[in-house]
Amino acid sequence: DSAFDPTHQSHRRYNPLTGDWLLVSPHRALRPWQGQQEKTPPDNRPAYDPTCYLCPGNVRANGAHNPPYTGTFRFDNDFAALQPDGPAGGINIDNLLIAEAETGVGRVICFSPRHDLTLPEMTPEAIRGVVDVWVDEYQTLGARPDINYVQIFENKGFIMGCSNPHPHGQIWAQHTVPVDPAKETVQQAKYFEEHGRTLLTDYLATELREKQRVVIENDTWVVLVPFWATWPFETLLLPRRAVASLELLNDAEKNDLADILRRLTIRYDNLFELSFPYSAGWHQRPTDGQEHPEWHLHMHFYPPLLRSATVRKFMVGYEMLANPQRDVTAEWAAERLRSLPEVHYKQTAA
Amino acid sequence: DSAFDPTHQSHRRYNPLTGDWLLVSPHRALRPWQGQQEKTPPDNRPAYDPTCYLCPGNVRANGAHNPPYTGTFRFDNDFAALQPDGPAGGINIDNLLIAEAETGVGRVICFSPRHDLTLPEMTPEAIRGVVDVWVDEYQTLGARPDINYVQIFENKGFIMGCSNPHPHGQIWAQHTVPVDPAKETVQQAKYFEEHGRTLLTDYLATELREKQRVVIENDTWVVLVPFWATWPFETLLLPRRAVASLELLNDAEKNDLADILRRLTIRYDNLFELSFPYSAGWHQRPTDGQEHPEWHLHMHFYPPLLRSATVRKFMVGYEMLANPQRDVTAEWAAERLRSLPEVHYKQTAA
Ligand SMILES: O=P(O)(O)O[C@H]1O[C@H](CO)[C@@H](O)[C@H](O)[C@H]1O
Ligand SMILES: O=P(O)(O)O[C@H]1O[C@H](CO)[C@@H](O)[C@H](O)[C@H]1O
Repeated sequence: DSAFDPTHQSHRRYNPLTGDWLLVSPHRALRPWQGQQEKTPPDNRPAYDPTCYLCPGNVRANGAHNPPYTGTFRFDNDFAALQPDGPAGGINIDNLLIAEAETGVGRVICFSPRHDLTLPEMTPEAIRGVVDVWVDEYQTLGARPDINYVQIFENKGFIMGCSNPHPHGQIWAQHTVPVDPAKETVQQAKYFEEHGRTLLTDYLATELREKQRVVIENDTWVVLVPFWATWPFETLLLPRRAVASLELLNDAEKNDLADILRRLTIRYDNLFELSFPYSAGWHQRPTDGQEHPEWHLHMHFYPPLLRSATVRKFMVGYEMLANPQRDVTAEWAAERLRSLPEVHYKQTAA
Repeated sequence: DSAFDPTHQSHRRYNPLTGDWLLVSPHRALRPWQGQQEKTPPDNRPAYDPTCYLCPGNVRANGAHNPPYTGTFRFDNDFAALQPDGPAGGINIDNLLIAEAETGVGRVICFSPRHDLTLPEMTPEAIRGVVDVWVDEYQTLGARPDINYVQIFENKGFIMGCSNPHPHGQIWAQHTVPVDPAKETVQQAKYFEEHGRTLLTDYLATELREKQRVVIENDTWVVLVPFWATWPFETLLLPRRAVASLELLNDAEKNDLADILRRLTIRYDNLFELSFPYSAGWHQRPTDGQEHPEWHLHMHFYPPLLRSATVRKFMVGYEMLANPQRDVTAEWAAERLRSLPEVHYKQTAA
């Protein structure tokens, strides 16, 4: 038999959201590993940690006191990468050394007062509280004339550069549209002009028909491993309805979002029975005052673990210099995630 | 004073080689770190390790025996990500699920029989041996009609996903041109058409005039921290003469390359007094049979450490979803690297 076989053969896949290609090496998952083993920090944090700068009532690095909050809590990042002011201007030397002042805001969102929880262990009601904060921050920041893009994200786990295990996410909002959302804007606009529907509307219809990459669904949301997934257990969370940004979600969609976030992150924790590390975040329309009908809101989950709690995928040499690459197929990863229960392993452990 | 100040102010810099922007946050280097500390594995490897699958005479995972080599040694990767054959073809479902078979070759190059050495501890003559192997592999692989791009690289250190500490590099050579070299081809071709000189010829002239980002030089090569560097101590190594690929180097340039590689990697080791981890690799013209006069050969070094042997830069949430970001300026990093001695710290330790 001599037909192209993507389950065994090295191949490239196209990512229509970015326009880039990915190298897939399905046969490579079993190479021997004499390299780095990740530490899995013991998952026995206290509900309150007096040394944590995010717990209720504690003092932060800049001397401010956190309020005795009971739901979510948000504040300006004490060490924001983007500064709200500073003189405009830039550098241009020989058209080769080019720089521009960039302004923006960094925000921190504590998901819960409980130091020992993460999304999969929170109630749907508490997660709905996080959703409401995301919507509110996107709207408030987006309304500012100096902010044209609002990047909402979470780094979960020390392996993902998270500097504090208290459950929290961040927002970096800024004047210009950063590289990845800018690429997705171009690609989605091209598709929308040609078809009159969002790229992700059509992509979702294809995946719901094909089925093998769908992980979970509810009335208004779907989680799937995208055909072009780069990270081993990468997923894409998207609403069935083509809305351009978070503030356009209706009440049912917000409740359903809390539900599906909980179910997805429980499956992730159950995969290797540990608090599953990832970087995740929303992509949505720039807040430049345009309508952006081409934009279809979605959330990317980029988790680094590959084979076990201690063996991760490294995006290094070839990947940094040439092209992202993965060792297992999207279909294989979706099947693994589908096979997992939706009761958190800590709940079922004797 | 209200002038744009890139030493203190958040700003963006443009990378003319890729066409992408970078976010720079010079003020952010001093945020507190309660996150992951890297392990620094003890640097006391034996000269020969009977369990290493790269040492002379040992048996590899596939049962092959390494020869009792005394200089360099190369072989086909036993777990190559790219396979040399397999049926052509692909998938196209609704113009949204798009895949193509991809063929290629993976090669491993042992730099030295000594398990305990790395480039900075090797002699210039031994490093010249590595240069000659790179040239030969580039030519031999590049001459194959099924190979249009040859990616030569090294992952150094466990933190960079290196699966074996024996000094070695890799080559992934393939049918299509991967994402990053393809972007650099487009950008360099645009520049060459407009100016009749390579982009890096003009960029190098600007940097040699400006001086503050130059790290080291010899008669035919320069190392600098590029204006748009992403990784904290990222460097760019380039020949003064605009050559498109490794096999066009003359004998003096090859000797000088060995010299400057040694001096650069000694400085890297001396920075935090440890075997400095990085991914590094060559970018050069595709081997598609075209001349590519726009291409200017160069090597990128992407090292992850930021503040010390144990605190690295993480390219996570914001960086994965939105835009690469750095916390110190290129000028600051160049100054640090310039201030270091060129005698290896192990040589000077009492
Ligand atoms: O080939 P190795 O050393 O087993 O693997 C290493 O380098 C490869 C090429 O950059 C990466 O794809 C792997 O993630 C990394 O662990
Ligand atoms: O803001 P934190 O949690 O201190 O820092 C973390 O997230 C940032 C945003 O993705 C990254 O730039 C940092 O490298 C990472 O350590």
